[in-house]
Amino acid sequence: MCPEDESGLDPTHPRYVSLNRRKRLAEGFRTGIVVPEGLIAHGRGEMFDYLLGEVTLPPALIAEKASAAALLTAKKPVISVNGNTAALCPEGIIDLAKAASAKIEVNLFHWSNNRALLIKKHLTANGAKDVIAENPDAVLEGIHHDRGKCHIAGIYSADVVLIPLEDGDRAQALVDMGKTVISIDLNPLSRTSLCASISIVDELNRALPNISRFARELSKNKSEAMKILDGYDNFKGLRSVYHTIHTRFYDLARSQ
Amino acid sequence: MCPEDESGLDPTHPRYVSLNRRKRLAEGFRTGIVVPEGLIAHGRGEMFDYLLGEVTLPPALIAEKASAAALLTAKKPVISVNGNTAALCPEGIIDLAKAASAKIEVNLFHWSNNRALLIKKHLTANGAKDVIAENPDAVLEGIHHDRGKCHIAGIYSADVVLIPLEDGDRAQALVDMGKTVISIDLNPLSRTSLCASISIVDELNRALPNISRFARELSKNKSEAMKILDGYDNFKGLRSVYHTIHTRFYDLARSQ
Repeated sequence: MCPEDESGLDPTHPRYVSLNRRKRLAEGFRTGIVVPEGLIAHGRGEMFDYLLGEVTLPPALIAEKASAAALLTAKKPVISVNGNTAALCPEGIIDLAKAASAKIEVNLFHWSNNRALLIKKHLTANGAKDVIAENPDAVLEGIHHDRGKCHIAGIYSADVVLIPLEDGDRAQALVDMGKTVISIDLNPLSRTSLCASISIVDELNRALPNISRFARELSKNKSEAMKILDGYDNFKGLRSVYHTIHTRFYDLARSQ
Repeated sequence: MCPEDESGLDPTHPRYVSLNRRKRLAEGFRTGIVVPEGLIAHGRGEMFDYLLGEVTLPPALIAEKASAAALLTAKKPVISVNGNTAALCPEGIIDLAKAASAKIEVNLFHWSNNRALLIKKHLTANGAKDVIAENPDAVLEGIHHDRGKCHIAGIYSADVVLIPLEDGDRAQALVDMGKTVISIDLNPLSRTSLCASISIVDELNRALPNISRFARELSKNKSEAMKILDGYDNFKGLRSVYHTIHTRFYDLARSQ
């Protein structure tokens, strides 16, 4: 008999962790939380995770610590949650919101009130409280149509925004609005990673618990948090990620 | 007026080819040929294609020629077709089956008899004859569950198998069964690419017509086909692909 977990996947499959993530996403798709475009986007992220060795690289860990510092020292920190994020890591989002006293706002590239409500329900079922979701009452400056919808009580008035798995246009709009933008995006070449104030190039399920842990550590020492932020160099981190990919392929190209 | 083809896409759009591929895949998804996991897999391929410059690299062309040689000199060549392959390039599969006198077997990671029949119907509607699909009567050695299902008249007894867009476990099982395995996979690090006898790191719609063209050329000269196979070095080709990616990130890591 071959062992299976409750998801129906075989834990002995060498790609079990990755398959399990896909399963969560596919489930989110069936329940209406995730859109087809989200599935294709997930695949693009998965590919970069391969290239990075599916581990949290040293520059990602530094970015995660800086992110914790930014959230802790913010006046109005908000975590933006879309369909993929909600499907992949609701626990991680909820725990970070607690650790950093941040608000959670459902914010969608492919907007629908119904989907926002479904995501809110999913987060609430996982233990979230006070999720901002339906009836957006503001628009991101420079972003037309439904893609710009947001909430005055949430992202619109936030000073620090965490945007996991976000579109480049919307990320840029938040930067242009003067906010400190923290991205979580496995693609170190994406427009989101290139424009963010702090670019975390790491997988969501690895990144979120790291940020929460740093937030809990730093909450006892806010002056240390300020110092970390002051010394943070985002492009140095990105270059280090490019270097990792380059050396990996350099070694592969020379292997026998 | 914006020109459009029958798919509703604008052929002058700079991402037309890529968008058209997504359109075919989304259509396959709606008709039940493609599973959600297939959309994710497509995203992974898309990103590698982007890193490779969306062209057939010289090592891919060499692998495509060697694949034509392997199919032509086989006793029982079989082309394995899954949902994504059928949705993306039915014409290419059918033409290659003709050019290389190969059988077509529908073979699914996420098995269902109904989906196998839908894919058979889709291939037949595009001109395929004698597609092996429903009621599998064999199992790939070492592969549990439905993932191992196959046909004695097809893959199970084949000596050369072409596996476009295939899972690593199943690819390895075919290699372990002593078959010559030809993969088409844009990920040059995937277990499929690493274990295949001939690893084509190229996009499906570019690779298949190339293999067909080489098969027609070589069909007049089988001793030339044997010579190509003898001189083929698969790992040399993979190293060359790694080199392409390495140089791209080398430049990025040094950028200011």
